[in-house]
Amino acid sequence: MLQNPPAEPGMAEEEVDTPALLVDLDALEHNLDRMAAFAASAGIRLRPHAKTHKSPVIAHWQAQRGAVGQCVQKVGEAEILAWAGVPDILITNEIVSPRKLARVAALSKMTNIALCADDAGVVALIEAAAEAASCRLTVLVEIHVGANRAGVGSPAAAIALAERIASSHTLIFGGLQAYHGGAQHLRDLDARRAAIAAVADTARAVVDGLAAKGIACPAVTGAGTGTFELEAASGVFTELQAGSYAFMDADYGRNRPAPDFRQSLFVAATVMSAAREGVAVVDCGHKGIAIESGLPLVHERPGVTYAGASDEHGQLACAAGTKLSVGERLRLVPGHCDPTVDRYDWYVGVRDGWVEAVWPVAARGMMA
Amino acid sequence: MLQNPPAEPGMAEEEVDTPALLVDLDALEHNLDRMAAFAASAGIRLRPHAKTHKSPVIAHWQAQRGAVGQCVQKVGEAEILAWAGVPDILITNEIVSPRKLARVAALSKMTNIALCADDAGVVALIEAAAEAASCRLTVLVEIHVGANRAGVGSPAAAIALAERIASSHTLIFGGLQAYHGGAQHLRDLDARRAAIAAVADTARAVVDGLAAKGIACPAVTGAGTGTFELEAASGVFTELQAGSYAFMDADYGRNRPAPDFRQSLFVAATVMSAAREGVAVVDCGHKGIAIESGLPLVHERPGVTYAGASDEHGQLACAAGTKLSVGERLRLVPGHCDPTVDRYDWYVGVRDGWVEAVWPVAARGMMA
Repeated sequence: MLQNPPAEPGMAEEEVDTPALLVDLDALEHNLDRMAAFAASAGIRLRPHAKTHKSPVIAHWQAQRGAVGQCVQKVGEAEILAWAGVPDILITNEIVSPRKLARVAALSKMTNIALCADDAGVVALIEAAAEAASCRLTVLVEIHVGANRAGVGSPAAAIALAERIASSHTLIFGGLQAYHGGAQHLRDLDARRAAIAAVADTARAVVDGLAAKGIACPAVTGAGTGTFELEAASGVFTELQAGSYAFMDADYGRNRPAPDFRQSLFVAATVMSAAREGVAVVDCGHKGIAIESGLPLVHERPGVTYAGASDEHGQLACAAGTKLSVGERLRLVPGHCDPTVDRYDWYVGVRDGWVEAVWPVAARGMMA
Repeated sequence: MLQNPPAEPGMAEEEVDTPALLVDLDALEHNLDRMAAFAASAGIRLRPHAKTHKSPVIAHWQAQRGAVGQCVQKVGEAEILAWAGVPDILITNEIVSPRKLARVAALSKMTNIALCADDAGVVALIEAAAEAASCRLTVLVEIHVGANRAGVGSPAAAIALAERIASSHTLIFGGLQAYHGGAQHLRDLDARRAAIAAVADTARAVVDGLAAKGIACPAVTGAGTGTFELEAASGVFTELQAGSYAFMDADYGRNRPAPDFRQSLFVAATVMSAAREGVAVVDCGHKGIAIESGLPLVHERPGVTYAGASDEHGQLACAAGTKLSVGERLRLVPGHCDPTVDRYDWYVGVRDGWVEAVWPVAARGMMA
């Protein structure tokens, strides 16, 4: 079952059923415009990460502003975008199951699609899937640059894997995936600067090593909302993958300086209990708002703090003299935007207190 | 969009697409049998909490073993159960929106339904909804017993609110909701015993106070998987609301003694990267397994630890001499069962290595 749409266009915001995922459309458009202008002025390609928005609608808005395509993490997300006409998709991740690789090959008939590898055995699986589907697939080498997740561990290993891909008749070497997730949330600018300088050094070593062997590197792609200006200035990156800039969240708000984007994503919640002094409860716990990167902030309601989350309840602490009433509505700022979006089937786009649009989080839950 | 079903009946477990929500049917049935036997022997009604399983299929299995009905937290969950024929549903929560209360009233034509209140204003709203729908609604008074969420703050306030409900021509006083969520996870038995003794004292004070006014209290309901034996022995509780016992999770496994149920819920995951010594990555991060009550445990794979979760990646630490291969499959034990279930559209029921049944997590995401 899908969730019922919590609103219809034309409603007042205060009529929206809660909990609901609100997008301030003025703020969203501001953010999309600003990042597009940055990429244009920096002369770098922008391929926003759809793991944030999970929405072909927003992907198309980004494309209208110049984005060259979208990133995704999962085959299911790629399918949702491809089926909605997104023409260029990079899976920034390793896909290792033959069934999933067959789905990737099928998408190659509808869209330009690429994926990552960090292992020669997986390259062979991708090759087999491409051969079975009579298509060519573009494969990027993921290099480990500090996130302690996937990625080959040395420039030499990256070069060897790129050679393997480039020598295949059914594969196309697409370049390097070099994303440092942990660096996005280093609070201090100097720390982020040092981390991305090291990333760029690693990527440059691979690019130079490939050039020495006569292998061109068509792309070096990475970066997030916390560091994109650093990758853009590095001289080695050719594409930015930032995604959260569209929405922002409380966690990015703690970076110094905070990224220069407006908070556009909120969860609307309703006070359902205020029976005891100093305490109130809203109808949104961590089933409705992600807390793994910190608790939500209460938007523009001084004296009220979101103090604890259980599955379906949010516990609010009210400072002395601050009284919440049952039925009162609050906007919550998520600690982390991406997984919060994943809790909802519908976006409710609001502007000036009115619901302007309701559209699906079409790739919600597409984890496979 | 719904997720694709990750399996079909008759498949081998190793063919199930990942990430996927696995239920060991032998273990589930053991757990359902054991709790049913406990309730029967203790002479107490069992009304399992569907916030755990979100599934009419499992609700019916519980009913076949003697459960008197189901608990839910949200109107949307009540709808999914009522529409699937569950005949007796308690919303263990405050519902304060007139639109949601109209939905509750509508359900009263299909099922026996009750809900909670901790505020006279909300009782008036429930009354109005019942009058508008020409039905009678059963309302329990929620009393605050330590979870620091909803609930009236004193026995006197509870008695006054019960009187208000009992005096209504459209409402039926249904008893007391007295659930102490925090007590479920106190690690030490003596601490749980003390907490539930205090809960029972509070409930008893309200029951006695009501009796002194000639108001019968039809039910005192509460308890969870960590404490149900204590509520059952209290002499004041008439119903148990435990839910997690069906599945269990790593967090309950840390109680001493651990509840005497088997782990039946797992997330199946696949190793997608093992490019560097001592590290591997599975295709399930916290979008696919809840981590707010602790990281998952790796089931029966010594030397491998789930060491960190990002949205779509699970980072595994491999002890010296332990090597994981790309494509290898693992079973993960969730830190917390309820929100993990909420990440999936499908249960994959397995027995002896084979997929026996695939059925929907029908009330997934029903937060409104």
